[in-house]
Amino acid sequence: MQDRVCTSQLGAHVGERVTVAGWLHARRRLGGLTFILIRDGWGLCQLTVEGRDPLEGVENESVVAATGTVVAAPEAPGGIELRDGTTTVISPAEAPPLTLSKRELRASLPTQLDLAAISLRHPARRRVFQVAAAMVAAFRETLRGRAFTEIFTPKVLGGASEGGANVFALDYFGRRAFLAQSPQLYKQIMVGVFERVFEVGPVFRAEPHETTRHLNQYTSLDAEMGFITDHRDVMAVVEEVVAAMVAAAGAQEQGVRRPFPTVAFWEAQEIIHSAFGRDVRGEEDLSPQDERDLGQWAKAEFGSDFLFVTGYPLAKRPFYTQPDPNHPGDSNSFDLLFRGLEIVTGGQRLHRYADYLAALEARGMAAAPLEWYLLAFRHGMPPHGGFAIGLERFAAQLLGLANVREAALFPRDMSRLQP
Amino acid sequence: MQDRVCTSQLGAHVGERVTVAGWLHARRRLGGLTFILIRDGWGLCQLTVEGRDPLEGVENESVVAATGTVVAAPEAPGGIELRDGTTTVISPAEAPPLTLSKRELRASLPTQLDLAAISLRHPARRRVFQVAAAMVAAFRETLRGRAFTEIFTPKVLGGASEGGANVFALDYFGRRAFLAQSPQLYKQIMVGVFERVFEVGPVFRAEPHETTRHLNQYTSLDAEMGFITDHRDVMAVVEEVVAAMVAAAGAQEQGVRRPFPTVAFWEAQEIIHSAFGRDVRGEEDLSPQDERDLGQWAKAEFGSDFLFVTGYPLAKRPFYTQPDPNHPGDSNSFDLLFRGLEIVTGGQRLHRYADYLAALEARGMAAAPLEWYLLAFRHGMPPHGGFAIGLERFAAQLLGLANVREAALFPRDMSRLQP
Repeated sequence: MQDRVCTSQLGAHVGERVTVAGWLHARRRLGGLTFILIRDGWGLCQLTVEGRDPLEGVENESVVAATGTVVAAPEAPGGIELRDGTTTVISPAEAPPLTLSKRELRASLPTQLDLAAISLRHPARRRVFQVAAAMVAAFRETLRGRAFTEIFTPKVLGGASEGGANVFALDYFGRRAFLAQSPQLYKQIMVGVFERVFEVGPVFRAEPHETTRHLNQYTSLDAEMGFITDHRDVMAVVEEVVAAMVAAAGAQEQGVRRPFPTVAFWEAQEIIHSAFGRDVRGEEDLSPQDERDLGQWAKAEFGSDFLFVTGYPLAKRPFYTQPDPNHPGDSNSFDLLFRGLEIVTGGQRLHRYADYLAALEARGMAAAPLEWYLLAFRHGMPPHGGFAIGLERFAAQLLGLANVREAALFPRDMSRLQP
Repeated sequence: MQDRVCTSQLGAHVGERVTVAGWLHARRRLGGLTFILIRDGWGLCQLTVEGRDPLEGVENESVVAATGTVVAAPEAPGGIELRDGTTTVISPAEAPPLTLSKRELRASLPTQLDLAAISLRHPARRRVFQVAAAMVAAFRETLRGRAFTEIFTPKVLGGASEGGANVFALDYFGRRAFLAQSPQLYKQIMVGVFERVFEVGPVFRAEPHETTRHLNQYTSLDAEMGFITDHRDVMAVVEEVVAAMVAAAGAQEQGVRRPFPTVAFWEAQEIIHSAFGRDVRGEEDLSPQDERDLGQWAKAEFGSDFLFVTGYPLAKRPFYTQPDPNHPGDSNSFDLLFRGLEIVTGGQRLHRYADYLAALEARGMAAAPLEWYLLAFRHGMPPHGGFAIGLERFAAQLLGLANVREAALFPRDMSRLQP
């Protein structure tokens, strides 16, 4: 539309006659006045009309335009309203199946997700995805500023990328193929090309459980870098990226204390024992409850929302993980907990061909199906490592959403293939 | 590695003693000198050694470091070399299966693709993906600058996104699902939320033919925008985005003449008839030969590498396409040809619910499976449209590559699921 002014730009047009266009968000009558709220892609604008509602009979969510004079009005949304206005209906709508005009969406999560085409229009829902987009932009900008190159890798594979479990199988011209669980093997190969790479893309996990933390498709923010000393060089990049993402989200940054506190896996278990009275020593991984306890501890001890846990038992990490040279049963790996939830996982990888052959053999995995990948290590790879951030999980945790599905536009879970 | 200098930054260190690290790219002996070329993620560096090669017996592609004094040397790569150097081997390699040290890779395309982990290290191969990354960054920056919001949509669907043909089917917890052929339906829904959206992501086409122009997975650069008058508003954005991508690629921009010339579909057929003597009038689509002829014509007539073709017959465009109000058998759609190859497709979409019901019925498609999508139109959608750019195809054409597979890191075609 020519000459249309976005609601976010009205402040620059006080005293002028302008046209706004958007969705009929709400109406309210008070005394002899009608207040008409129009929502566009960026915000809300109030049109105040004396007397009869010019849009009487027009349902909310209809697409409308209003032309009027921009007036400062401290009590209106954004401190601005339109007066002396005329309205036109661009595209009429049926009455919406959800009430979008209240501050909160009062519908169950399944209903909201079923009606995503409408529920996502609610300003509170919409904001989640504005924040997520800003976080992704910050991820990319931080890494591009450190000379990382963006890559795009295959999502349909001849074999499973991280081992055989939890993969979706598909028919590829009569052959069996799998959806990528991560870009891991490809991003490592690309360290041999660009040294530093990142990828933003979907990954697919056929995990057969319904929790508030899991999606069967999610957006993975992956990075990988060469010529590191060990996993701590990777953690330094994670810290920078994550801090930039929090800042881009416009979140209050009180809990971002750099450097992020770090504890070893065995220390984490000792803390859970001494501070929370649960003896988890000897377990090979942290449970969700362990992570929550550690999050609480990091907040109390350091005022930090973030906590690195390093040195997970090698047996629980994937075959490409570099052992800790001082404690070979442990690994040069880390997770980053954010308010008690793992949002990043990473570490140093093996880089010697012989080490790969030994690691695969120790796990009973065949090397031959991975020859295309092992080629990189036969022909020269530097010490390297990387990390992956789960976008939806990070955004949900940052915004205090109870369920990761609320941070996916159209989430995929065991029962949900639509919308 | 601490204190390591990237090859691209050596110019700032002339006279200093520095360490570079990378892959042993090539060696050459001349008179009493040995020239050692080290390749890192950004370029090449020459180490010149008097007498015996200190890396004798070390295979090319081994990861090495060299410490030496930076000296201006006009005949060396980048005009810089290291002298009085010492070398160390960080990670030894087996002799590479391809010769990377020559200006060109002398291996067949299938061999290059099979050995992608190594062939991508060749500077000429690597450059393709640096350019592609820069093009994607320009796509995003241009759209963010115009208030578009980035979105991430599902790649696993309960039904086919663009109609039933050419979709990959998969097993989703015992149910039949499909890989997304495009984010089309989702990006339209999101116009109802943000008005302007874009997505960069993989799409999957089970097209059962092997050509130099098709991939079964490719990177689609999608955008969609609301409150347009018609498809020409979309074309204006395409032109801006595409020009920014060409500029970001560092390509010579001689063929970028703005505004891009535009011909109607029927005019295009007349041109092919009159200028090339082939009577294609009455055909419902353009063939690859038609596109090549039109590319040649646009270059001769306007000095333009780009040509918009508008008004394709409605029957050949998807169900959501807006008819041309003046010629209802034609559509408010366009393709953008670049040097005689379609690289962008787009147009105005239907926005009225009743129009969708009529269009689906006319094509014999059921509305019920699309109810989750049609909901957006029942509840208010503005006139809108969008476009999709095939990244690999655009990059290949821009760089003069004969086969689109050369612009995919790890291409997927009918026979290729690995690497």
